[in-house]
Amino acid sequence: MMNQGDFRQLLGTDLPIIQAPMAGVQGSALTIAVCEAGGLGSLPCAMLGMDDIVAEINTIKRATDRPFNLNFFCHKQPDYHKKQHQAWHTLLAPYFAEFGINPHQLATRSNRRPFSHDMADAIEPFRPEIISFHFGLPEPTLLARVKGWGTRILSSATTLAEARWLAAHGVDGIIAQGLEAGGHRGMFLSDDVSTQVGLFPLVRQIVEEVPVPVIAAGGIADTRGVQAALMLGASAVQVGTAYLLCPEANTSALHRQALKAESAELTALTRLFSGRPARGIVNRVMRELDCLHPAAPDFPYASIAMTALRTAAEQQGTADFSPLWCGQNASGCREIAAGELTRQLAAAGP
Amino acid sequence: MMNQGDFRQLLGTDLPIIQAPMAGVQGSALTIAVCEAGGLGSLPCAMLGMDDIVAEINTIKRATDRPFNLNFFCHKQPDYHKKQHQAWHTLLAPYFAEFGINPHQLATRSNRRPFSHDMADAIEPFRPEIISFHFGLPEPTLLARVKGWGTRILSSATTLAEARWLAAHGVDGIIAQGLEAGGHRGMFLSDDVSTQVGLFPLVRQIVEEVPVPVIAAGGIADTRGVQAALMLGASAVQVGTAYLLCPEANTSALHRQALKAESAELTALTRLFSGRPARGIVNRVMRELDCLHPAAPDFPYASIAMTALRTAAEQQGTADFSPLWCGQNASGCREIAAGELTRQLAAAGP
Repeated sequence: MMNQGDFRQLLGTDLPIIQAPMAGVQGSALTIAVCEAGGLGSLPCAMLGMDDIVAEINTIKRATDRPFNLNFFCHKQPDYHKKQHQAWHTLLAPYFAEFGINPHQLATRSNRRPFSHDMADAIEPFRPEIISFHFGLPEPTLLARVKGWGTRILSSATTLAEARWLAAHGVDGIIAQGLEAGGHRGMFLSDDVSTQVGLFPLVRQIVEEVPVPVIAAGGIADTRGVQAALMLGASAVQVGTAYLLCPEANTSALHRQALKAESAELTALTRLFSGRPARGIVNRVMRELDCLHPAAPDFPYASIAMTALRTAAEQQGTADFSPLWCGQNASGCREIAAGELTRQLAAAGP
Repeated sequence: MMNQGDFRQLLGTDLPIIQAPMAGVQGSALTIAVCEAGGLGSLPCAMLGMDDIVAEINTIKRATDRPFNLNFFCHKQPDYHKKQHQAWHTLLAPYFAEFGINPHQLATRSNRRPFSHDMADAIEPFRPEIISFHFGLPEPTLLARVKGWGTRILSSATTLAEARWLAAHGVDGIIAQGLEAGGHRGMFLSDDVSTQVGLFPLVRQIVEEVPVPVIAAGGIADTRGVQAALMLGASAVQVGTAYLLCPEANTSALHRQALKAESAELTALTRLFSGRPARGIVNRVMRELDCLHPAAPDFPYASIAMTALRTAAEQQGTADFSPLWCGQNASGCREIAAGELTRQLAAAGP
């Protein structure tokens, strides 16, 4: 087991806090603010084009010389299955009618792309210090290429079995993603949400059994949460939801409103927005359809129709079809600067 | 927020450890061993007849003068619905055939009864120091009667909303039952398992918002877990699964075997065994049927047919139909005396 000071060696930071990469609700501004405060800021690259990734990295490097984390998805991109989409569009037909959407005009591509050699070409000149992957790891030659840069590799485990797998495949740190966490489950050895484990036992079991530093993620929102995670044996924590109200985040007004309301007390795992289970605040579409509905097409294609509905609904001022990503503890969300929040999270204890 | 020393006032014990009441797998022997070690032993009364409850209390009182906890269920007992059972028996028909069970010969009663004035009559002479309820609280006059004895009342909350409700109804302590916990969910304001929260955020949120001492339960299996729970603001912890291999527990040989095997890594919430969601090790019937199958009759009636199947299967040496209750952290299960385990859990820290 690492002792708690070892996060410095793993992350290169003053504080044992990683700001969780949150695709769609943040860019380099949040990354920079957290880095400058002594934490590890993250840049979510999963929904960015190659040029945008390079531009964001340049922005970060101009603003800070601290280490930061680049996050990529590394799912296997399936082909677009027309049949899947027919069933899905039938399910959504009443909503298409409500918002005047013609499903035949929807795209058949998604802008969520897995990490690739092309992306590696784009970021190689920067020799990134840290990259975190979600949904496992890239294929061996691509992973070896990144490791060859001296880049330290993190990835998420949602079960003890996934942690063992990641350790066997050479990661430098394991993000233990408790089922409390907001956004996409990093699960990659099973797609059965009943396998998902609470943070408390997940951290304890990985720390005891797997000889790789553990970063605790999910439901941590304040100093006591951070201290408790370190007590469980984590070397650091990763915090996402608590940053969503910070001015440096791009969280939409509707999302901010939901986070501040009582609605944030009820979150659920849903496949509806992307095809993979992700935790968000329960809204109209999650109430009206089965959150894990099998008709939702494979990740990332479910997002195509849902994005059309979301856009139409948001134009009418409702978040009924928006992915309101949020963990099971929104109580730490505060409208303060991300740097200040980072320092408060890392305060020495209650 | 209570400070951590206040558990003495709440529980009357030397150590901040409650041994979780586990109906069906323990009696007074485990209660006594934990009490004598300085923790709060519990006697699960939900599946005992009135005479047995009195006999067990007398056994405990002869063996120890320490305080102990009596646990009762307080669900509303529904009527037996013939139609529900027809659908259920149709679903189970292949299993009945496999084991030669005639469903028309099954009982129409369950031995799980809610707390009642009759039970109160039986235990009143003992003036119990502590009673914990599961599934909410008894109706107001019955609760008032028990409180009138000077008995301190605990009950389980699985959400912040349930914690607020319990506080408003006068409990002395709230057991924050994280979804990691083994056995029956104490949920009583909702039957939607998607509302269930991990221990980490559940404890933090209740501690911050509800002015009643909090006892953390679910996934706690060792000293670091206990210390982390106290760091989150809990006044004490409740531990169940870790005691299941102790010689003082009545855990069956098949259950012990499952706890010691890799199978214990995969648990799930299921309605199949009783009609209410409860966490156990995934076994054949949980794999073959939907764990939350809507055809399972209302609690406690689902247990009637499943007990018949379980008995038949166990006679053939398999736990395929047994409720293998277990939390998400079986790593703390050890074949040592319950008193020793209690002292180790409460050790001052790593």
